[in-house]
Amino acid sequence: MKLSQIGEETLLESIRKTFSHCSRNIVHGIGDDAAVLRQSSKYLFVSTDMMVEGIHFNLRFITPYQLGFKLVTVTVSDMYAMGCTPQYLLLNIGLHKDTTKHFINTFFAGIQAALLKYNCDLIGGDLSSVRRDISLSAVSIGGGKKILSRKGAQPGEKIYVTGFLGDAACGLELLKRMNKPVPITCSNTSRIQSFKGLSRKILQPLLKRHLLPDLKKPAPFVKHASSMMDISDGLLIDISRLCKESKVGAKIYSDKIPVSSELRNASIKLGLSCQKLALTGGEDYELLFTSPRELKRGAYHIGDIVESGTVLIGKNGQETPFSPEGYQHFL
Amino acid sequence: MKLSQIGEETLLESIRKTFSHCSRNIVHGIGDDAAVLRQSSKYLFVSTDMMVEGIHFNLRFITPYQLGFKLVTVTVSDMYAMGCTPQYLLLNIGLHKDTTKHFINTFFAGIQAALLKYNCDLIGGDLSSVRRDISLSAVSIGGGKKILSRKGAQPGEKIYVTGFLGDAACGLELLKRMNKPVPITCSNTSRIQSFKGLSRKILQPLLKRHLLPDLKKPAPFVKHASSMMDISDGLLIDISRLCKESKVGAKIYSDKIPVSSELRNASIKLGLSCQKLALTGGEDYELLFTSPRELKRGAYHIGDIVESGTVLIGKNGQETPFSPEGYQHFL
Repeated sequence: MKLSQIGEETLLESIRKTFSHCSRNIVHGIGDDAAVLRQSSKYLFVSTDMMVEGIHFNLRFITPYQLGFKLVTVTVSDMYAMGCTPQYLLLNIGLHKDTTKHFINTFFAGIQAALLKYNCDLIGGDLSSVRRDISLSAVSIGGGKKILSRKGAQPGEKIYVTGFLGDAACGLELLKRMNKPVPITCSNTSRIQSFKGLSRKILQPLLKRHLLPDLKKPAPFVKHASSMMDISDGLLIDISRLCKESKVGAKIYSDKIPVSSELRNASIKLGLSCQKLALTGGEDYELLFTSPRELKRGAYHIGDIVESGTVLIGKNGQETPFSPEGYQHFL
Repeated sequence: MKLSQIGEETLLESIRKTFSHCSRNIVHGIGDDAAVLRQSSKYLFVSTDMMVEGIHFNLRFITPYQLGFKLVTVTVSDMYAMGCTPQYLLLNIGLHKDTTKHFINTFFAGIQAALLKYNCDLIGGDLSSVRRDISLSAVSIGGGKKILSRKGAQPGEKIYVTGFLGDAACGLELLKRMNKPVPITCSNTSRIQSFKGLSRKILQPLLKRHLLPDLKKPAPFVKHASSMMDISDGLLIDISRLCKESKVGAKIYSDKIPVSSELRNASIKLGLSCQKLALTGGEDYELLFTSPRELKRGAYHIGDIVESGTVLIGKNGQETPFSPEGYQHFL
């Protein structure tokens, strides 16, 4: 059955049933002109993110489930990046009228898995048809007491990341070379076959990082951090943005960048530069933050904030100034 | 100059400068991962709306200025429809990399004109490239004390609309026949030439209603209304939705539907049914609400809420049951 036979009203009705919620702060949820919330936190955080077919995703490499999961995840990541835990989501979903019922069901299953994982309620959105490319956007809302923006880093502070970098970019590269979707879900990651001499054990964390990213919560770092963002476009461009907003510079120590053994292994087999993937690869969705404190747990110290200039320090101490490299739309 | 030469970072920088704001409740605006607000109203209202090229608009009939103006207007209308006055907007903007600087500038001029008109601040959003069709969405946020949803209409209450119906649908039909954009703006509506024997005076309100809709504020009706929505898809489908949510029926008196003299005039010349345009034409963005009170000003009494059934009463008292007609996506 296709969306052209189901229609907007029936789809909306099924979404309302699937995503019924019980938070008592949702006064009015899905199905009206606007959603209404009770909100009593000091600050209200709002973020929105687009995902467009052919730009952010390619259905040759991603399943509808993974697409739905990722749509929620990218906007939750933006909120985590400000030190906030989102509570509510709205989704704008533009699909072709030839979309199958199976696509819709698995797409919404992915959305639901992510909402459950990140403990968010879907409270509204908009449905539309599109002529060609799928067009999606997600809005997330949450309350909080402390704001961690890109401003606030001070010279002398340490720069931290919360996990391995480059895995997601390597995962995307793997998918492009496999040229087919890998139908893993949150509850079933067994459907990976070895590829180019790389075992399932090596492939799984790389593919999963790209397809079903597992966000780190900001809570353990909020108290000590002076600035924060998520790494979505690549470490170098993102730290450049943080430095620009904070009006400071940064030294990044290349041998301190956390890189997974799987990435080291796969990059050799694929003929890719492991360091380039870690420094410029996008979509890792790890948190990047600065702090005057020495943190022992959950984060890797990769550099220091300085007065000005952005420099990469090599293994032997050689300094290479870097300019923002990474993904820029339109260019 | 094209967007491919300007780039995302430069465009973002120019947006930040253009839309700087001074509301002290905006703690953190455009340019970070999320926007942060101070919010102290009893209820928080949030709404989002998509506008996709080829579905919601056709660049053969609409200028970039009008597109920007309408993008803001449709989401403000959703908030008005709940009895709320929005204060903040986020915009998701997906444009082709070949988009010209002139397009971008006039598109943002339209956005700015609408923000000014509806007294809203742009606080964030997302920019993306698209391969083909332009994809836009707007998120609006506001605080309020009373919620006017689609639920709440009671048998015996009166049904009101705040203005003429059918004008926007007639305006769209005119544009399709003219097959070219009519470059009117909020400050200049003089650029209309007579068409098929219809004078500028007749054409102007019809075209303006479609291209630059002028929303009625809900404030004068909030106190007395029991349910409310905006007419975006057409009177009959929208009243059907209100009835469904309120679990009631409606009688609509066809001779009480407010119709402009311009619509009467143009529909004859164009060979269209004036009544059909008024009953099923979309995008008028008038408020539709119910109230137990007899209201003297600013709204037209067009029908009554009954226990069940939706019926149109003709001039001579003949009753025609109606099923929801109007625009449904995907079908």
